Amino acid sequence: MPLWKCLLTYDGTPYNGWQIQPSLPTVQGTLAAAIHHITGETVLPQGSGRTDTGVHALGQVASFELAVPIPRENLHRALNRALPASIRVLSVEPAEPGFHARHSARRKTYEYRIFPRSNYPGETVCSPMLAPYVWDCPWPLDPSLLQLACYDILGEHDFTSFAASDPDQTTRQQGDSAEPRSNIRRIDASAWSERDGLYVYRVTGSGFLHHMVRNLVGTFVEIGANRIPVDAIPGLLAARDRSVAGPTAPARGLFLTDVAYF
Amino acid sequence: MPLWKCLLTYDGTPYNGWQIQPSLPTVQGTLAAAIHHITGETVLPQGSGRTDTGVHALGQVASFELAVPIPRENLHRALNRALPASIRVLSVEPAEPGFHARHSARRKTYEYRIFPRSNYPGETVCSPMLAPYVWDCPWPLDPSLLQLACYDILGEHDFTSFAASDPDQTTRQQGDSAEPRSNIRRIDASAWSERDGLYVYRVTGSGFLHHMVRNLVGTFVEIGANRIPVDAIPGLLAARDRSVAGPTAPARGLFLTDVAYF
Repeated sequence: MPLWKCLLTYDGTPYNGWQIQPSLPTVQGTLAAAIHHITGETVLPQGSGRTDTGVHALGQVASFELAVPIPRENLHRALNRALPASIRVLSVEPAEPGFHARHSARRKTYEYRIFPRSNYPGETVCSPMLAPYVWDCPWPLDPSLLQLACYDILGEHDFTSFAASDPDQTTRQQGDSAEPRSNIRRIDASAWSERDGLYVYRVTGSGFLHHMVRNLVGTFVEIGANRIPVDAIPGLLAARDRSVAGPTAPARGLFLTDVAYF
Repeated sequence: MPLWKCLLTYDGTPYNGWQIQPSLPTVQGTLAAAIHHITGETVLPQGSGRTDTGVHALGQVASFELAVPIPRENLHRALNRALPASIRVLSVEPAEPGFHARHSARRKTYEYRIFPRSNYPGETVCSPMLAPYVWDCPWPLDPSLLQLACYDILGEHDFTSFAASDPDQTTRQQGDSAEPRSNIRRIDASAWSERDGLYVYRVTGSGFLHHMVRNLVGTFVEIGANRIPVDAIPGLLAARDRSVAGPTAPARGLFLTDVAYF
């Protein structure tokens, strides 16, 4: 049975997240329907992790086994013909035996995009064509405060303060297998930058708890807006209490950009 | 009664075009509802012209009169608060007496964006985040043919071959008042360029018949794909027959970019 690894990009706006659900549009369900349409086979493609409703992907990875042998280029082309324009397959390749998009993942990178509200008086307008892909944040932010604060999550930490408070959700969303049922994660990169007029946060780690990136961004924004001190992150991590950290940033600014398997 | 001129940008995807319709979301209807929400007044804002379902705007102009006096900055901010993120007001200014967004318009500029299918074998993928704003054209196109052909519409011509074949629609959509019930229009600029990996067509004219830009683009694409000779445009114009020209390009690639009043 050929095992396939697909690299996917999608606009999360029209989907109720990755995970298949009865009678709701989801990315996993739409991909499974496309595979069924092409091959007649009923398979459940495994993603590197679930993305929530409205979260986008530039490099989600999915794996699935097919009984029928089919040339790689044909599968690639057929998938893009069968899928809606909101989901595109960037590449298809045969996977090593035993490969699993979620269990084999070693690191993930997310990006969060903020449309900055200017400090000048008057209206700053976020383009309607950009609005589904950014947080049009209502407060002026100091980018140097964002930058300073974000370094404090580098290394291994217990991220309970930044995990969705529903414990079932947290467990379900761990994704990476390194630390089952633990809230400890290793962060390898964490940085804000300015790009195309946006504030862009990129974070790479061994794995992420449910809502973790959006809760981190929501907290950084509180710091950037001068409502939480810039040196607060170590204390918030130590508290292991969701209620001490900032709110959850909106889904529409979040992109799963990369999953690494080495 | 203060008369206002608004510069608007919108994502046409969620709207059934500009023109207000009962129980369907439209840009004009959404703007009228926002004005009513702010002022309690029932007005019908006049646009520079109707955009069709799915057509976007970077610089649509709307005019309306309000009984209540309200400072310009307050009206601007209140409109953007009341409107959904898919419609943004770029500017609000008091208009000269007698100004009418449609009747006073002298020239309009539209832009059409095509995601080019590469001539190389294999999959060329249009980003899902870009797909609502381009035509992911399925044929390889020769940009030099597009460029050559588009100059042939410069100047004053009868554009019957490029107007929607429904005569009622054509009349309704003339927009500009210079040549009522005539299909003659003056084109001042017509050029293709490459920008950010897209083929971009920009056209400026005294006014446009219903579907005219999309029918021109559909015909240029037939030329770029080598299915219509590059020198065919003068003959197509002379025929004054919609059935001789190319098909209508999809709405999602079209932007109303600018309306000039001088």
